[in-house]
Amino acid sequence: MQVFSETLVEDNYKMSDAIRDIEKAFSHLEDINQAPRTVIPTGEGAKAMLYMPCVDLKQQLGTVKITSITPENPKSGKPTTQAQIVITNLENGEHEAIIDGSYLTRLRTGALSGIATKYMSNPDARILGMIGTGGMAFEQFLGNMEVRPIDKVLLYNRTTEKAESFKQRILKKYPDLEVIVTGDVSDLVKKSDIINCQTPSNEPVFNAEDVQPGTHINGIGSYQPSMKEIDYKIFPKADWVVVDDLDGVKEESGELIEANENGTFTFEEIDDELKTLSINNQKRKSEDAITVFKCVGAAYFDLAVAIGAYQKLNK
Amino acid sequence: MQVFSETLVEDNYKMSDAIRDIEKAFSHLEDINQAPRTVIPTGEGAKAMLYMPCVDLKQQLGTVKITSITPENPKSGKPTTQAQIVITNLENGEHEAIIDGSYLTRLRTGALSGIATKYMSNPDARILGMIGTGGMAFEQFLGNMEVRPIDKVLLYNRTTEKAESFKQRILKKYPDLEVIVTGDVSDLVKKSDIINCQTPSNEPVFNAEDVQPGTHINGIGSYQPSMKEIDYKIFPKADWVVVDDLDGVKEESGELIEANENGTFTFEEIDDELKTLSINNQKRKSEDAITVFKCVGAAYFDLAVAIGAYQKLNK
Repeated sequence: MQVFSETLVEDNYKMSDAIRDIEKAFSHLEDINQAPRTVIPTGEGAKAMLYMPCVDLKQQLGTVKITSITPENPKSGKPTTQAQIVITNLENGEHEAIIDGSYLTRLRTGALSGIATKYMSNPDARILGMIGTGGMAFEQFLGNMEVRPIDKVLLYNRTTEKAESFKQRILKKYPDLEVIVTGDVSDLVKKSDIINCQTPSNEPVFNAEDVQPGTHINGIGSYQPSMKEIDYKIFPKADWVVVDDLDGVKEESGELIEANENGTFTFEEIDDELKTLSINNQKRKSEDAITVFKCVGAAYFDLAVAIGAYQKLNK
Repeated sequence: MQVFSETLVEDNYKMSDAIRDIEKAFSHLEDINQAPRTVIPTGEGAKAMLYMPCVDLKQQLGTVKITSITPENPKSGKPTTQAQIVITNLENGEHEAIIDGSYLTRLRTGALSGIATKYMSNPDARILGMIGTGGMAFEQFLGNMEVRPIDKVLLYNRTTEKAESFKQRILKKYPDLEVIVTGDVSDLVKKSDIINCQTPSNEPVFNAEDVQPGTHINGIGSYQPSMKEIDYKIFPKADWVVVDDLDGVKEESGELIEANENGTFTFEEIDDELKTLSINNQKRKSEDAITVFKCVGAAYFDLAVAIGAYQKLNK
């Protein structure tokens, strides 16, 4: 049983690896089987254990991500979400490794936004507006940086101090970037080529009317029916609505569930799953199109990056 | 992340520990929640991955047993079933340990037979007849030894050589025991005070007519609808039929499913779950009673021994 810590994985497995490995998985999804996620509540509110198993019959490897959600943790400086991924060799049945899944979860979610941005946004998109600068935000930033010539980043966060320290984190890695913290979401939305939302908000974090032609939006924050960070009025206004996993968003994307229920935008009107864009190299049809990617996550994304990291670490 | 190997667990956590810890779990089942088992087929026949999650809200610990079934493995000298159990602290969400689950699965199954024998068999039972001497058998033997004054063991196995080497394994640990390998199942059944069956057989391994008054039977081999090692005609003949997990046997015990379907013995006629015997210290009503315990396993038994072993190893 090999044990890989978060630091070890983070030092060796990068955004470009994750984007490549997830797109590689898209190309042979017929070999990948995942079971529905199991959730066991363990206390008040969202406190729970989550289990996401998946197997890749082509590579003969299986993974299961085990995630704890501990909402009280931030009060004592610990992360809300903690994950580990166990890797099993399906040829001989041996459980070969346990690999920290916290960074990998952030990375694969960032990679999904990166892939969406690559196919859906304008190729010359250079202004990235980020709403929410919490735990998932840095890899969201990296995913966009990987695929577009971003030179300006606008940051909004409910608590401004956190946006300021996030700005410092960005500048440490990219000192030449222009990074602006703003308290004016409306202004951020109007000026951004790409809007990336990563909040657990139960109400819209922007106004659909502010979204300009040519904008691409990634929404990765809401993963429960009660969470609705994206203003659902953007869906009928958008030219292209793509999701990471159709079955998943029907259960977990609060904004799409609400839009479907009130008839503003039904599930049938969702245009594509992300895999189709990757497989067919499908791009936006016009420079002025408004495009939206909604992501809730699925076990096979975890499998793709866990196997990728495991194989890279064992080279 | 602590890693505990099979050898380490086997050297430190014994049958008496497992019996105590499972009975301790019986006493506070209201705090223990398990989710249905997830199975993902990974190849031909029984080849699959199994996931069994469970949480103990009182001890604030969660476990998930991850099991691979690789039917071809014995051809290359490897075990068919390989398991690992991940332990999570629910208070702070930290995944604390990964502990080999192969010995623990054998041990908890032996402990369940031990507990059944303790409550159900005659207190002076001294002859143990074992049908099947494969991978699960030794801990079945230990479970019975722990609770009854066994001084004679009768062994039957389809391949006699394996029964002979199992006999040597017993004698190495208990040199004073009388151990007899027999090719005559009927004779074994007639002479035994306790009959313990642990085979994956698709047909009965003994004839119900041979079972004598006063006999107690443990059946732990069949855990799929196709597996039927116990002659189902014993159920209507028996005075007391107990199962480890009622929901489980309805899905997984081939002999009880068949008896229920053909009306010989319905699920409603099952008398008790094992936990009730333990909680109420319930014993057989007469010396001449025929009693049967059927066991298919459940996640909370794994939780009980995994937590027990983890706590003992951390003392």
